[in-house]
Amino acid sequence: MHALVARLYPLCRSITGDGVRATLDILGEHLDLDVHEVPTGTQVLDWTVPKEWNVRDAYVMDADGTRVVDFRRSNLHVVGYSVPVSATMTLAELRPHLHTLPDQPDLVPYRTAYYAGTWGFCLSRRTLDGLGEGPYTVVIDSTLADGHLTYAEHVVRGRTTDEVLISCHTCHPSLANDNLAALAVATALASRLERPRLTYRFVFAPGTIGAITWLARNRERVSRIRHGLTLACAGDRGPLTYKRSRRGDAGIDRVMAYALRDRPHTITDFSPYGYDERQYCSPGFDLPVGSLTRTPYAGYPEYHTSGDDLDFVSPESMSDTLEALWSAVEVLEGDGRYLNLSPYGEPQLGRRGLYGSVGGRSDTKQAQMAMLWVLNLSDGAHSLLDVADRSGLPFRAVAEAAQALETAGLLKREGA
Amino acid sequence: MHALVARLYPLCRSITGDGVRATLDILGEHLDLDVHEVPTGTQVLDWTVPKEWNVRDAYVMDADGTRVVDFRRSNLHVVGYSVPVSATMTLAELRPHLHTLPDQPDLVPYRTAYYAGTWGFCLSRRTLDGLGEGPYTVVIDSTLADGHLTYAEHVVRGRTTDEVLISCHTCHPSLANDNLAALAVATALASRLERPRLTYRFVFAPGTIGAITWLARNRERVSRIRHGLTLACAGDRGPLTYKRSRRGDAGIDRVMAYALRDRPHTITDFSPYGYDERQYCSPGFDLPVGSLTRTPYAGYPEYHTSGDDLDFVSPESMSDTLEALWSAVEVLEGDGRYLNLSPYGEPQLGRRGLYGSVGGRSDTKQAQMAMLWVLNLSDGAHSLLDVADRSGLPFRAVAEAAQALETAGLLKREGA
Amino acid sequence: MHALVARLYPLCRSITGDGVRATLDILGEHLDLDVHEVPTGTQVLDWTVPKEWNVRDAYVMDADGTRVVDFRRSNLHVVGYSVPVSATMTLAELRPHLHTLPDQPDLVPYRTAYYAGTWGFCLSRRTLDGLGEGPYTVVIDSTLADGHLTYAEHVVRGRTTDEVLISCHTCHPSLANDNLAALAVATALASRLERPRLTYRFVFAPGTIGAITWLARNRERVSRIRHGLTLACAGDRGPLTYKRSRRGDAGIDRVMAYALRDRPHTITDFSPYGYDERQYCSPGFDLPVGSLTRTPYAGYPEYHTSGDDLDFVSPESMSDTLEALWSAVEVLEGDGRYLNLSPYGEPQLGRRGLYGSVGGRSDTKQAQMAMLWVLNLSDGAHSLLDVADRSGLPFRAVAEAAQALETAGLLKREGA
Repeated sequence: MHALVARLYPLCRSITGDGVRATLDILGEHLDLDVHEVPTGTQVLDWTVPKEWNVRDAYVMDADGTRVVDFRRSNLHVVGYSVPVSATMTLAELRPHLHTLPDQPDLVPYRTAYYAGTWGFCLSRRTLDGLGEGPYTVVIDSTLADGHLTYAEHVVRGRTTDEVLISCHTCHPSLANDNLAALAVATALASRLERPRLTYRFVFAPGTIGAITWLARNRERVSRIRHGLTLACAGDRGPLTYKRSRRGDAGIDRVMAYALRDRPHTITDFSPYGYDERQYCSPGFDLPVGSLTRTPYAGYPEYHTSGDDLDFVSPESMSDTLEALWSAVEVLEGDGRYLNLSPYGEPQLGRRGLYGSVGGRSDTKQAQMAMLWVLNLSDGAHSLLDVADRSGLPFRAVAEAAQALETAGLLKREGA
Repeated sequence: MHALVARLYPLCRSITGDGVRATLDILGEHLDLDVHEVPTGTQVLDWTVPKEWNVRDAYVMDADGTRVVDFRRSNLHVVGYSVPVSATMTLAELRPHLHTLPDQPDLVPYRTAYYAGTWGFCLSRRTLDGLGEGPYTVVIDSTLADGHLTYAEHVVRGRTTDEVLISCHTCHPSLANDNLAALAVATALASRLERPRLTYRFVFAPGTIGAITWLARNRERVSRIRHGLTLACAGDRGPLTYKRSRRGDAGIDRVMAYALRDRPHTITDFSPYGYDERQYCSPGFDLPVGSLTRTPYAGYPEYHTSGDDLDFVSPESMSDTLEALWSAVEVLEGDGRYLNLSPYGEPQLGRRGLYGSVGGRSDTKQAQMAMLWVLNLSDGAHSLLDVADRSGLPFRAVAEAAQALETAGLLKREGA
Repeated sequence: MHALVARLYPLCRSITGDGVRATLDILGEHLDLDVHEVPTGTQVLDWTVPKEWNVRDAYVMDADGTRVVDFRRSNLHVVGYSVPVSATMTLAELRPHLHTLPDQPDLVPYRTAYYAGTWGFCLSRRTLDGLGEGPYTVVIDSTLADGHLTYAEHVVRGRTTDEVLISCHTCHPSLANDNLAALAVATALASRLERPRLTYRFVFAPGTIGAITWLARNRERVSRIRHGLTLACAGDRGPLTYKRSRRGDAGIDRVMAYALRDRPHTITDFSPYGYDERQYCSPGFDLPVGSLTRTPYAGYPEYHTSGDDLDFVSPESMSDTLEALWSAVEVLEGDGRYLNLSPYGEPQLGRRGLYGSVGGRSDTKQAQMAMLWVLNLSDGAHSLLDVADRSGLPFRAVAEAAQALETAGLLKREGA
């Protein structure tokens, strides 16, 4: 996963443009992607698809011909959606277009101006402090023109049409944790899914406008989404954070609480701020979509700076995020409501070899307790996750007990 | 407010009589009052309006002609509703009619005998200990005769007929905290209300029988009461105490919890004991009426003694009570349910100048968060107070955000 | 109670057989019992009544004619439901049939093999360690043949047909706490009930198969059970433990929490493991049946060993269990929903002598508060136990207040 992050890192992404296409091309080497191109000017919910932005070069050059700020060194140096500029100006004239972080003098900030029609450069405070009066040659060789917004989907079809949505934003340039790590983890998760029960839909789209575009084009289809996650900041060294859906008691909220319970983690309530859960959880949609990150949105000093680089994300952290997601998938796949077909008194398990079937295993006692719990709570009102929660038993033990009891004809699955 | 308390302090109030009328006359100098006179013998719910009691003079005089106990010095000296007496008797004969506080030897207790047909005097233990064997001339020049029970209402009409009830008991003689401070705070609150949305009804009536009389005469009208408070003990130096309505989850219960959250305070559950919330919250009415006091009912040593004097109440405490009430009024006035008219995804605020509109303010970030929260929760099921509670934002910021969004055509108020 | 335990202690009980009959004969000296005999092979829910087992003698005798293991010394020495055996064998041959407790070398374990068709002996580890190579004469003079499963009921008829079920398992041989103490406590409780409002049904039946048999034969009748308890381990020196019904919020769960609140106790959630609450709370029945023990199921080192002897149970503990049950009975008997017939405002209690009626008592204040609480909450939605819980007053004070108010015509009982 870290290699994939490293490969994607240099590309200049924004909410539109060739950097996004190049990113999706690379993901497409791992996953079968449907790439969608939506023309500039398309009405999407309350918004309009903006012009497409591309930048070939950008720099501030001093009188000696030295590029003191250079897009080729880092795409963070140019403010996203900067209009073209080619001028000579003094530092005083240039100064209003320069963005630094006075409190973090060695870092370059990440800035955008999507709908502002302006331009600018980002640089470290230390670089700025070293600049003379000028004059400087100032060039941004960008185009802001009719074009397309690009997003992609990857679908792993399941035995049912009930869907799990995993959504990652693709619009940030050279920031590793936000959000290349999530792209890498989502790609790994998608690759691991085989013939699942549920259908898994991965959406790779720019933040805000991308999610809004996807929602606008899939209004009829969102009712299929039974569970969803926005996935972001998946690689830093902090513990996992799950932010609940707007509903607060959706299935995904319980599943994620379960999936995280044996790892260091934090669970927070929904707020209409952060990543694209803002859109999925807008009141008109109110989808059961939570958000999984490690350190949450804007919660680390390197956030939206050049400090969010390849060293900032660790293979171990990405792996931990993936495994937590996999625990959630196991529950999503295995969960269900069952009906005890012999609900009056306990059925005689011994006669059916259901003690014997587990007799040789070291977890016999757990398996037996799981069977008793599943039988007791399988009244159509409790799911296997309910059984795991109430009994304190691992979900896997509960699911195995349900399987054994179903095989023995004592249990019947309800619904899909 | 303290000046008003001081002016009311000397009057001899009881559940009926001229002291109540004089009290209402003084309040009437500040507020437009409707004074109601209900004749003795009127059936009011399970009760009957009693005879009217007035006392002109009362004393115990020793052989030297010295008034050792004198109504003119303090009206607390005569037991409320004492029948007339004029007799000469020894201390031994008088003793069963004398009430003291052995544990608080310097204080005169407050005692009444509304429906008992007896008489008595209250005095300090120290005075009692200094009395000789007598004989004493014992006079209570009172009348207990057909007359009226007197109460008053002040109504501040709002744009809707939904009512807020503020009820204060008027039946205590020279006790400053219980309940002159509440009368003064209620008067100040009423004076401050200008063209409110809700209608505010202030009821000044004797305890128990007065509230029962008001309820009996307004049975048809009580359904208009959306929120209510009994207000008492509003001036002592203790922190504020809110006692929930019988329902426990009425609007007023949430509003008061919000209004008090930034002050030292206590919130207690309802109990059918205390002030007239007993009557308003009787199960047949079960009105959404809580009770606001500082130190609660019977919770301070000076309670129902001559220690509850003008020094016992402080201007600062009365002012604090008033401000807490005003915070509650702000929420009552500003609260409401709104509908997000653009509920699918977030509406584009920038295009509507809704970032700009707040851009120059230091609380920009809060204002922006408030807009996102209001948009997200305005689904018809959440009130602005819900938004404030869930977001942790100040109610005022939430209400201002709603206003801005309504002006921008993004929000519509539901109902009144 | 301890004397009864001592008398029952030597009998060799199992899930069937003459030991159970002898036990019920002795209980029958105290209570009027209906004894039921259910033939071997009867289908009961998912189970079949097994063959009846009786044992006359059993021993392991060495070459000197010494009985090194002897059923006559303790019936724990023979594994329950052992098939007959008469053989000579070496220790090595005998060894697979011998059960000990290596960690508790002085204690004899209790073992059964109900449906296994095997045989065995239980002995202390120390005894085993002292045995030579043999050969030994090994005899179990048992019969396993068509017969009956025996259980008994004792019913105390009440004024209503609503039932309280008290169920005790009878199938354990010489184990005092598990479950002779419960038999003794249940017998004492039954003896103390006189003309109750509810009907009390005591079931004395073998564990699992007995409860299943009773349920199978009473399927039509179980809907009458309003409250129930399995009673076990009623005599050890640990504090009381109440395990909630499967429902978790049944009336019995609230009543037991109330009954135990002034004693050291633990309350645990339901689990489908333990005593016959497993059967009563199976999802098809889901009866409001909790479980009362002192130290719970399998929670003490002496559990299912010869250490659970007559010294292990104390008269004080049995008495404490009985008194806790009696507190629960008082609530069950006295609880009910009432309707305030004068619900608008408080009724005038003084005029009805309801202050006077309690005036001479030291608990006047409590009695008066109880009346106010009962009046306030008697809206048909609250029971007297609700009133006690919400007011913090003792149930008895609340029930007496309800009685006084009903006598005064202010209250009417709802339902039965």
